[in-house]
Amino acid sequence: MNDVKIEDIQVIVTAPNNINLVAVKVVTNQPGLCGYGCATFTWRYKAVVTAIEEYLAPMLKNKSVHNIEDIWQTMMGSSYWRNGPVLNNAISGIDEALWDIKGKLAGMPLYALLGGKTRTGVALYRHADGNCLEEVEECIRQYIQDGYRYIRCHMGLYGGNAGQVGQWLCKPDDAPEGAYYHPGQYTRSVISLFEKIRIDFGEDLELMHDVHERLTLAESMRLAKDLEPYHLFFLEDALSPEQSDSFRILREHTVTPLAMGELFTAPNDWKALVQNHWIDFIRVHLSDIGGITPAIKLAHFCEAYQVKTAWHGPNDMSPIGAAAGMHIDTAVTNFGIQEYAGFSEKEREVFPGCPEIRRGYAYVSEAPGIGVEIDEKAADKYPPVSMDFSWLYSRLQDGTAVRP
Amino acid sequence: MNDVKIEDIQVIVTAPNNINLVAVKVVTNQPGLCGYGCATFTWRYKAVVTAIEEYLAPMLKNKSVHNIEDIWQTMMGSSYWRNGPVLNNAISGIDEALWDIKGKLAGMPLYALLGGKTRTGVALYRHADGNCLEEVEECIRQYIQDGYRYIRCHMGLYGGNAGQVGQWLCKPDDAPEGAYYHPGQYTRSVISLFEKIRIDFGEDLELMHDVHERLTLAESMRLAKDLEPYHLFFLEDALSPEQSDSFRILREHTVTPLAMGELFTAPNDWKALVQNHWIDFIRVHLSDIGGITPAIKLAHFCEAYQVKTAWHGPNDMSPIGAAAGMHIDTAVTNFGIQEYAGFSEKEREVFPGCPEIRRGYAYVSEAPGIGVEIDEKAADKYPPVSMDFSWLYSRLQDGTAVRP
Amino acid sequence: MNDVKIEDIQVIVTAPNNINLVAVKVVTNQPGLCGYGCATFTWRYKAVVTAIEEYLAPMLKNKSVHNIEDIWQTMMGSSYWRNGPVLNNAISGIDEALWDIKGKLAGMPLYALLGGKTRTGVALYRHADGNCLEEVEECIRQYIQDGYRYIRCHMGLYGGNAGQVGQWLCKPDDAPEGAYYHPGQYTRSVISLFEKIRIDFGEDLELMHDVHERLTLAESMRLAKDLEPYHLFFLEDALSPEQSDSFRILREHTVTPLAMGELFTAPNDWKALVQNHWIDFIRVHLSDIGGITPAIKLAHFCEAYQVKTAWHGPNDMSPIGAAAGMHIDTAVTNFGIQEYAGFSEKEREVFPGCPEIRRGYAYVSEAPGIGVEIDEKAADKYPPVSMDFSWLYSRLQDGTAVRP
Amino acid sequence: MNDVKIEDIQVIVTAPNNINLVAVKVVTNQPGLCGYGCATFTWRYKAVVTAIEEYLAPMLKNKSVHNIEDIWQTMMGSSYWRNGPVLNNAISGIDEALWDIKGKLAGMPLYALLGGKTRTGVALYRHADGNCLEEVEECIRQYIQDGYRYIRCHMGLYGGNAGQVGQWLCKPDDAPEGAYYHPGQYTRSVISLFEKIRIDFGEDLELMHDVHERLTLAESMRLAKDLEPYHLFFLEDALSPEQSDSFRILREHTVTPLAMGELFTAPNDWKALVQNHWIDFIRVHLSDIGGITPAIKLAHFCEAYQVKTAWHGPNDMSPIGAAAGMHIDTAVTNFGIQEYAGFSEKEREVFPGCPEIRRGYAYVSEAPGIGVEIDEKAADKYPPVSMDFSWLYSRLQDGTAVRP
Repeated sequence: MNDVKIEDIQVIVTAPNNINLVAVKVVTNQPGLCGYGCATFTWRYKAVVTAIEEYLAPMLKNKSVHNIEDIWQTMMGSSYWRNGPVLNNAISGIDEALWDIKGKLAGMPLYALLGGKTRTGVALYRHADGNCLEEVEECIRQYIQDGYRYIRCHMGLYGGNAGQVGQWLCKPDDAPEGAYYHPGQYTRSVISLFEKIRIDFGEDLELMHDVHERLTLAESMRLAKDLEPYHLFFLEDALSPEQSDSFRILREHTVTPLAMGELFTAPNDWKALVQNHWIDFIRVHLSDIGGITPAIKLAHFCEAYQVKTAWHGPNDMSPIGAAAGMHIDTAVTNFGIQEYAGFSEKEREVFPGCPEIRRGYAYVSEAPGIGVEIDEKAADKYPPVSMDFSWLYSRLQDGTAVRP
Repeated sequence: MNDVKIEDIQVIVTAPNNINLVAVKVVTNQPGLCGYGCATFTWRYKAVVTAIEEYLAPMLKNKSVHNIEDIWQTMMGSSYWRNGPVLNNAISGIDEALWDIKGKLAGMPLYALLGGKTRTGVALYRHADGNCLEEVEECIRQYIQDGYRYIRCHMGLYGGNAGQVGQWLCKPDDAPEGAYYHPGQYTRSVISLFEKIRIDFGEDLELMHDVHERLTLAESMRLAKDLEPYHLFFLEDALSPEQSDSFRILREHTVTPLAMGELFTAPNDWKALVQNHWIDFIRVHLSDIGGITPAIKLAHFCEAYQVKTAWHGPNDMSPIGAAAGMHIDTAVTNFGIQEYAGFSEKEREVFPGCPEIRRGYAYVSEAPGIGVEIDEKAADKYPPVSMDFSWLYSRLQDGTAVRP
Repeated sequence: MNDVKIEDIQVIVTAPNNINLVAVKVVTNQPGLCGYGCATFTWRYKAVVTAIEEYLAPMLKNKSVHNIEDIWQTMMGSSYWRNGPVLNNAISGIDEALWDIKGKLAGMPLYALLGGKTRTGVALYRHADGNCLEEVEECIRQYIQDGYRYIRCHMGLYGGNAGQVGQWLCKPDDAPEGAYYHPGQYTRSVISLFEKIRIDFGEDLELMHDVHERLTLAESMRLAKDLEPYHLFFLEDALSPEQSDSFRILREHTVTPLAMGELFTAPNDWKALVQNHWIDFIRVHLSDIGGITPAIKLAHFCEAYQVKTAWHGPNDMSPIGAAAGMHIDTAVTNFGIQEYAGFSEKEREVFPGCPEIRRGYAYVSEAPGIGVEIDEKAADKYPPVSMDFSWLYSRLQDGTAVRP
Repeated sequence: MNDVKIEDIQVIVTAPNNINLVAVKVVTNQPGLCGYGCATFTWRYKAVVTAIEEYLAPMLKNKSVHNIEDIWQTMMGSSYWRNGPVLNNAISGIDEALWDIKGKLAGMPLYALLGGKTRTGVALYRHADGNCLEEVEECIRQYIQDGYRYIRCHMGLYGGNAGQVGQWLCKPDDAPEGAYYHPGQYTRSVISLFEKIRIDFGEDLELMHDVHERLTLAESMRLAKDLEPYHLFFLEDALSPEQSDSFRILREHTVTPLAMGELFTAPNDWKALVQNHWIDFIRVHLSDIGGITPAIKLAHFCEAYQVKTAWHGPNDMSPIGAAAGMHIDTAVTNFGIQEYAGFSEKEREVFPGCPEIRRGYAYVSEAPGIGVEIDEKAADKYPPVSMDFSWLYSRLQDGTAVRP
């Protein structure tokens, strides 16, 4: 094995969907050989770029590309304080790019390095939303027509549509601006939504719902229990990540399957949940935990408890990251389901090699590595956009800020 | 910072609502600067007055007003045996007065010292009662009209109306006097009450019920579970405080949210309930745990577990204590709800600066400190009353005394 | 059985040892029949007097003396907020007096009502203290000569003698007044003390030590473990009562027997410690938990776990209370040991009928009831004294107030 | 209260000690009123600067300075993914500056807002190191002469001196560069070091040792147990933060007091350790958990379990952050000890108002707020330095990278 070395590490920011995506390109000293990884923490992407360009890139230049585990440990320990979405995404960008290179050196797609296929396609779930029942059901129908059999159902965005809850959402004087919601009305509307969807679509469609970390333990217990007749495939992110010890109690009260973890960034977040069987699906965002290296280990840890994977998968990650997750989905025995938000035409233009989607399944590229490249000229056509969306406009009716 | 000193500590007992209220006035050596606190343990108010006048006042004279935590610890340890409602109320009167002084010295309302507003108004719940369903519902309607959205519903006082349950309440010979009740009839009447209220008022009204510590674990489990279809905001004080370890089992059997603690006086009462997620709301009476200093710590302790505050708030506390609680309500992120029993015109006369109440929310005074003063001339118009009401006339049908 | 009724309840405060003792006299409508109980919370005795005279006495007048349990429950529930040393002592005074009356009506000493003697004498332990090793050992020798075989050993008062620890007890500028101590030096001095005592007195002498609630968990673990070679009979009150859940960890680290509880006032304080076997001896002050009625139950509860009794017994309780405890000691099977501080001549003058002490054992009076009366004329000779001693002068070297 | 608003947020990077320090200046619309906070994550400081300048500053402009809790929650939730050292330090800089402003508006030093002084000085511990026993002991002697009584002792830097352990540290062929250490030799050298120090300095000196997260559970259990004869004040950071659940076992095996947490960044890191009494001291770096707002809550949470504070305090934080911690140290009852690394003359020049240090105690400024300002001209004299130090050169003898 030649000692291929890291010659350069470049960061590419592009926004084909008007969401800033951060990709890392690791250039090697072997002509034509480079790897791509996803480092997308879209809400603070500039801090990720700084972390890579100012710290990780200089530290890794001229290092061998081969010893990914050692590089990962070195990156993780190099800042002493560690974890958290900024540093983990920076690490992920490089980690995924190195796995991409390893695949290319081996002439194998990533899944093959991980032990090969345990399935030939990756089952996907989609997100259906609408302002009223009709719109939601229209959306579901469209997904079914496209071949999807797992659908996450919402009405009026996460937390329900404040505009509709009317008279009871009585705010105090001088309440600050924000997206107000009422946990009681929200949970009741969810129950009513699923009751109707089951009537209209029957039992065979697999349904999910995403609480988006907005409920208290008491509220989530009630919701999960009241949803039991509608047989959810899972209830997603019922509690804030800082309250993950509450899953012990939630678990005692419901047989609704529980998925958790899109906001997790470190082992202290998920260890107790998995080892105590408090959840059924682990839903981390791969780049937020540091890339492929920790994701493989996490999948293996979960297998020990028959907890299944359900990697986070909306458009706030690049197709490189989405594909990396789907390679793991293809390989691990305890794959559960994959969230999928659609690759747009523009994304496919910028990121050639995106997984193919057919009848509700994703099929990763058979090209060596992750299989997704970057057309840098196309990327330049979609420069970073200015995003003024800030997550914390969620407030209870009395004005209390609620971290989603 | 000048070293402002305690010059005098005075106790004011007044009964504008025919309930004896105990307030403490801490007079400083800075002309015109004094603070007010609540020390109301109305059922033993004379013992509280003795504790303040004979012990705490002489101990604290000429001490600096600044170091509240040290004074609180000193008061708490000064009697060696400690905790309990008499000593804690005495301590609270001084503690709250010192926080009032601190706010006045800072030129800030208390909530601002505590980190500022996390909400602009404090959502309130009211107590609806009546001798029959019609009376209860009329009461609810009135509250709704006044803008309240959280209502605690009862029929026939706590424990149900002994007069109505008639035939089944068969007492043995020579049974002692008292307020007899029958747990089975009481719990069934509660379930029936909420069934009807939900039919008549729909799902959006938030409802509570207060067991007032009268049930056994078995009785409370059944009640909490049978109430699940009516989606209570919480079930209050289901068990006696001496049985708080039973909440472990109660919690396993119901998703009805649980509030507890108006009789708690010390950390051993609440620690296990909070850290194990056995309750959802902590309902202590601020002056019974020793005032603002321990209440802030308790709120922060509960925040670690997403347990929310629901401070006790009937007319057995002075408006100073009610306002102190509302300042904390305004500041802490894990505020849940505030019990409120109305400030009467006479109370507002004696205690100028009471929080304003508008459309179901309380708004604390923006004046420095707690913002509630005492008009001593007005207080003199309502001297202490003789109260022959004694709590323990509660008895089971066979005559067993039941501590409420 | 005639229906003997309570005609009057009187409070007697007397200070034959210059410590204010509070006794209750329940006068009945049967000529010559009265009972005496102990209500001594010496640090706040005036509040106890108020609680009895203003609340309990009027409530109980003309009630039958027979139904002690019902009266106890009624008293306990009558203030709604309950527990704590003021109210519990008030209740104890009446409870013990009613048991005294019951014995007199039966013509039996109290222990006989409780099931009779399980032993004929009550083994006692004494408290040895001194400013140096020689003084402590001289004190021990005197006790041994008097027949005692259980001795609690201290040097320089509780927490050690600050005056001796010299250079290391470096206080910060402007440190407040108080009794400073240094946990490290204190624990080392204790270990050294017991090492020497064992050398000088051999293994047969039973030794105790009282931490007086001044250590943290870490400090107490080390002390208890380092004391193991000296085979203590028990280590007393190692942690503050508010930290009683820490006994779980302390217990894991040492086989030094643990006694706890002189500051306990309610079941939430002791329940977990007993049911989990975290302690070996329960050390409550009888009147601080409400008298004989709860003490019998507590002894029975502890028997279920083979936890033994070791009632608190210094001079801050009246001989009536001390004798009441010794009656229980005589009767219950799980008696462990009894703390004893000596009845002075003046006490014996005021309280005729004190238990006899011979060769390290106490023998309760065989007279009906508790057997200790009050000579009211003698009591008048020793009116209450003004006590300026306040417990919380304990401070760490940096000035931190430590609740003993 | 006037509605003071945030007009500008500036970041100041300065390196008076050749360590890059990040401070935040919040400028208000009230002339002359600004606040300073610490945002120092020196190993990735540029990413912190990006996070503040690009995201938090624009989000907060024109917001009221008063409602710190709401701003903290808003900042914390605004990036959806959260926690971690980059974002927490950014939040801390603003949070501390807002508390500084609140103190200035109140005319009170920060500790006074938090309930006043519970001690007049903050006891400090220093770090003694050397290449051989003589050098370590010389260092200790110097500290003692300066009045310090708590000293953390090391020989040959963290992990021991690789250069000295020589022969046993047999590396495999082609081992990568790094600072190699051998856990067995390291732990044995530590035990030997403390044995000698105890012989030379006696028992009264309080000693610590910092494992710096380099040992496994098995190694740390042995070390902690073998150190018991030398009575450490605490053993620091025995395990990596990702292994904090291992403290359950470590705790079972030793009475050596345990301090943990300088790498913690979120509640899931510390909750179990505190509530289960697995540690005795919490050692977080204030700005790494998000500033004063979460630190107050954490101190209160720990107080419920008698876990004491021991905030991280080396030169990798600005004197503003150090002073903020010392204000909390001054106020909370459960202060344990404060790490202190010395304020250099250059630091005092750049940061006027640093706490005074006298005879082993720190005394915070009595000026309103945190009391530490920035002399921007002086700061400019010490521009950021290029730091090529990277933490992860720690490797076992076989080359395994070990995250410190």
